[in-house]
Amino acid sequence: MAKAGPPRPGAAKPAGGRATLRDVAEASGVSPMTVSNLMNGRVGSMRPETRLRIEAQIEKLGYRPHTMARSLRLSKRLSIGMVIVDDMPNYLADPFITHVVSGLGNHLNANGYGLLLQGHSAAAFKGSPMVRDIRTDAICVMLSGSDAIRRGVVETLLGLGQPIVLFQEILKFPAVDLCSIRQDDRGGGRMLGQVALDGGAKRLAMLVPELYWPAIGERIKGIREAIRQQKNGAELRIVTCGDGEFRGTQAALAQDLDTHGLPDAILAGNDQMGISAMKLLAARGIRIPEQVILTGFNAFEFWQYTDPVLTTVRSPAYEIGARGGSEILKRLADGSFTQTDIVYPVALQRGGST
Amino acid sequence: MAKAGPPRPGAAKPAGGRATLRDVAEASGVSPMTVSNLMNGRVGSMRPETRLRIEAQIEKLGYRPHTMARSLRLSKRLSIGMVIVDDMPNYLADPFITHVVSGLGNHLNANGYGLLLQGHSAAAFKGSPMVRDIRTDAICVMLSGSDAIRRGVVETLLGLGQPIVLFQEILKFPAVDLCSIRQDDRGGGRMLGQVALDGGAKRLAMLVPELYWPAIGERIKGIREAIRQQKNGAELRIVTCGDGEFRGTQAALAQDLDTHGLPDAILAGNDQMGISAMKLLAARGIRIPEQVILTGFNAFEFWQYTDPVLTTVRSPAYEIGARGGSEILKRLADGSFTQTDIVYPVALQRGGST
Repeated sequence: MAKAGPPRPGAAKPAGGRATLRDVAEASGVSPMTVSNLMNGRVGSMRPETRLRIEAQIEKLGYRPHTMARSLRLSKRLSIGMVIVDDMPNYLADPFITHVVSGLGNHLNANGYGLLLQGHSAAAFKGSPMVRDIRTDAICVMLSGSDAIRRGVVETLLGLGQPIVLFQEILKFPAVDLCSIRQDDRGGGRMLGQVALDGGAKRLAMLVPELYWPAIGERIKGIREAIRQQKNGAELRIVTCGDGEFRGTQAALAQDLDTHGLPDAILAGNDQMGISAMKLLAARGIRIPEQVILTGFNAFEFWQYTDPVLTTVRSPAYEIGARGGSEILKRLADGSFTQTDIVYPVALQRGGST
Repeated sequence: MAKAGPPRPGAAKPAGGRATLRDVAEASGVSPMTVSNLMNGRVGSMRPETRLRIEAQIEKLGYRPHTMARSLRLSKRLSIGMVIVDDMPNYLADPFITHVVSGLGNHLNANGYGLLLQGHSAAAFKGSPMVRDIRTDAICVMLSGSDAIRRGVVETLLGLGQPIVLFQEILKFPAVDLCSIRQDDRGGGRMLGQVALDGGAKRLAMLVPELYWPAIGERIKGIREAIRQQKNGAELRIVTCGDGEFRGTQAALAQDLDTHGLPDAILAGNDQMGISAMKLLAARGIRIPEQVILTGFNAFEFWQYTDPVLTTVRSPAYEIGARGGSEILKRLADGSFTQTDIVYPVALQRGGST
């Protein structure tokens, strides 16, 4: 190997050193600011021959800017945001969300993108760092709260000028850079409502958390559709169960049973609430399904823990997350999503509770 | 309000416009590269009066660099990595991990930092974008695999030159920029082992997933310590249960029961495995705790789903995650962690299974 001489304009960088922006400038006979302008895409007033000369030296010297500087140049942060708007601090408690996040994260990681995860209450959302300072190429979001609150959050995000993927959202935002991916919660509600009606239920109760999630709203609509179609005069009562966790659900259901008596069917907003209800009913000596039909929603791992096992529907949450990742990467690569409203079916899982 | 005049050197930026680096340079009578040098902390060869003049104009014009450029200047990406090394694609399946991630993420978000989440198998780890390109200020990690694999991952991460927080790790890395935060899994194992021994158990079986997690190793050590202390000749058998999920656990336990008969106590590596075991035992008509004592580990939400409820220990996983966040921010702010080995106690939760 030849002995390395002192660096000179146009010379390759000596072995062991790493070419800097200043080396490129010197070798090209331009100022460092001119090289910096090129690296950052500011080439409007640059003469083509200057640009070609600098690019030749970048190639020759093997100059590679710091990753972050390179991201800046490409206007690519190589990061995708995932915002979960939930009033609970443990915003990953629901397995639907963890399946979406891991499906999304795995797809992005495999393609060289990071996942920037944030959980916020709706109230804290506007003050979040993501809203103050854009640090992502696109944003995924899963929202709770009223239509007005959710619409406000999406509009704030749209103001950042980034592509958006909404998970489990039913609000429409026409003609904007947005893709909505969800499961057919209404269809799932219809299926489970139908199971209850087929079991002879006339008085149905639906357990829901106090915080509004659009997917829960869709499940209620599906049950109501099944009732309307049946035309047998069945009625649906909505029982609001605090935070939707074990104790909150049991306390609300206990009060409801004491006030209104036992319904013919209890349809829970998700499996967690269904299992909480099952344990309360068992403690009261009420037999499932003989005295009351009981259903859940989503069929994640712990769905199998009880006896009897809940009748429920199986959620494709992991696939929904992964699809979010592939839609974002397609949008960043060629400017458009494949579709703007993507709906995945859910599948009925019959257990011993109906 | 005064009518805005045309911009001139030293003048405030007209209303509606936003000061650029070029405006600051012009107003200060220096080249844009000089301003850029100051913004990026390259002030070594800069005359103090030049620096003061530029800083005065930055203040006067209200110049604020783009967030990413500012991060570059400060060598701060305002992002903390969280790497989970797990062979399962759904790397957020275990509630221990989701509690750590949400505790960590909430603490970081509240302090203006993002959380960059990644799940990798040990095999895919070296190829991950985080390892190819540093994009964080510090890295948190939760590891599975053999001591050699985990040590290899930590050494790769240490090579990035960033502070590291290890969750649930017991390997020691002396004299490096690292903080270890874990719960007292060994103490928890001792408590549950003692409960089994106090119940008269002589033949104990421990259910563990095939993939090695150091916390599970600690739980085994704790049980063995309780047995040694008791000196009644009790024995511990380790039953490896595939992926540790419902079906895998039941299949492994069924085979073990058929081969070795029913032990006096089954101590599960976590509550999920304990519940899977409970349902298999119930299906075989085996009464808990009359015929076999059964325990879990961690006491997250679904721990309450079964009948009887498992005796277990309660994990402070959310606090562990939040502590990871506060340790990182302290380290970034003043150069050191408060401690390098932080251990949180776990609390015994008695249920009907012992």
